[in-house]
Amino acid sequence: MASMEGYRRFLALLVSALLLGFVAVVCSIVWVLRYREGLGWDGGAAEFNWHPVLVVTAIIVYRLPWTWKCSKLLMKFIHAGLNTIAMILAIVSMVAVFEYHNARKIPNMYSLHSWIGLTAVIFYSLQLFLGFAVFLLPFAPVPLRAALMPIHVYSGLLIFVAVIASALMGITEKLLFSLQSPAYSESPPEAIFVNCLGLLIVTFGALILWMASRPHWKRPPEENAKVQRPNGGAPEGVEAESTMTDCSNADRSDAGFNSEAARKRNFKLDEAGQRSTM
Amino acid sequence: MASMEGYRRFLALLVSALLLGFVAVVCSIVWVLRYREGLGWDGGAAEFNWHPVLVVTAIIVYRLPWTWKCSKLLMKFIHAGLNTIAMILAIVSMVAVFEYHNARKIPNMYSLHSWIGLTAVIFYSLQLFLGFAVFLLPFAPVPLRAALMPIHVYSGLLIFVAVIASALMGITEKLLFSLQSPAYSESPPEAIFVNCLGLLIVTFGALILWMASRPHWKRPPEENAKVQRPNGGAPEGVEAESTMTDCSNADRSDAGFNSEAARKRNFKLDEAGQRSTM
Repeated sequence: MASMEGYRRFLALLVSALLLGFVAVVCSIVWVLRYREGLGWDGGAAEFNWHPVLVVTAIIVYRLPWTWKCSKLLMKFIHAGLNTIAMILAIVSMVAVFEYHNARKIPNMYSLHSWIGLTAVIFYSLQLFLGFAVFLLPFAPVPLRAALMPIHVYSGLLIFVAVIASALMGITEKLLFSLQSPAYSESPPEAIFVNCLGLLIVTFGALILWMASRPHWKRPPEENAKVQRPNGGAPEGVEAESTMTDCSNADRSDAGFNSEAARKRNFKLDEAGQRSTM
Repeated sequence: MASMEGYRRFLALLVSALLLGFVAVVCSIVWVLRYREGLGWDGGAAEFNWHPVLVVTAIIVYRLPWTWKCSKLLMKFIHAGLNTIAMILAIVSMVAVFEYHNARKIPNMYSLHSWIGLTAVIFYSLQLFLGFAVFLLPFAPVPLRAALMPIHVYSGLLIFVAVIASALMGITEKLLFSLQSPAYSESPPEAIFVNCLGLLIVTFGALILWMASRPHWKRPPEENAKVQRPNGGAPEGVEAESTMTDCSNADRSDAGFNSEAARKRNFKLDEAGQRSTM
């Protein structure tokens, strides 16, 4: 019952986060359509704004409780796939900014916004590449996966935060450049509107970080791996890899989020450092 | 031995973080002295820049392993005291900006930087007030403390991140305003220098977040509370309050960071949600 309560709270937060994310995307589209030059291949604002939402969907998809019945491999594919889409959008948005700068003879890469933004995208590529090589391909040994998992989780959330900080700096720059008469300091409607968009993004990020960092909303370990080696045969409680790729395993339908035993095992894994969160 | 190794790594990270923080403060002083109007009661840059460093020292002081032998109450006083100093510096720096704006007839509170900065300071005050009322004063019941602790830790780190994001936006604004000929986009030495200061602050924040979020660097629970109730008599593994106020208790000198039993109990407490980190 306590778990059911926690599950409902998770759902409420998830819906709020998705709503906030959706509203943020709508606001950014309204910004470029109503106040700026509109959509197109000029400054890439609209392409760019899809990016944080997809990153976040990718972070959160790993933690949906109903997916705990799906195979871990399928979840990994969804996680990697969404992040790849988000990465491509980030690169497209960067190309758009470079083309915009070159067309107007504005220098590239001079601002702190661009430095931190590019650093985040480079680390993001690295994160995707290493995640693919270590966690998705079947070659990396289990102790290596266990050692790298806390770093993977931490750097994923850090890149997420850096992208948000970068977005806020970008908003600051764009408003200072674009608003001339009336200036940003005279608080025209566009300034208020886009400041609110900034607050929305921050609230969104705060919600996602809260959801992604609660230990009781972690995916429980694979049940079949536990059944095969019931008494500590696995090194340090690390899970074996499941090869299941669908969510229809009825045998495990009651081994989901409300199993107290799964919860206990989950915390034991924490100790092995494999599933450490942020 | 593994714990000793972890302890050395913690020390290395702590020294790096303090060094980075120190260098960031020095850089910000060099910025205002060499490139800007110097120190004084004009824009408050130097006062302001002490602020994140003190916040961070306050976050980190709770996690120094050698202090695990000190009483929890003493640690709480240090934690609260450092945060109070940091809070006062933040308010002083805000007053400086308001006076600067008023003297030059620049409107206040129009930018996203100011919105997020003020929000962070308001939440910071709330955090301090609630922390004082719930965790320092002896009136709050243990279940309330246990329920609020994860929120206290999360919001503390969130405020820390928001302050860093706010600092980066402030740097962006200041450089766009101050650099005229040559402009920010022409990358004069000051632009490069202050961009590097921004990267330094980000690296510093990343280090602190890593240290503050590793579960194995948490302070173990009070030993004497455990001895009094050896077999789960305490509600949900929650610690009793220690009234010791010095660090010289020799009885507990070997119960520190390398006790495997303390580590186990520590993870049990995680389950009760009392010492959840971020």
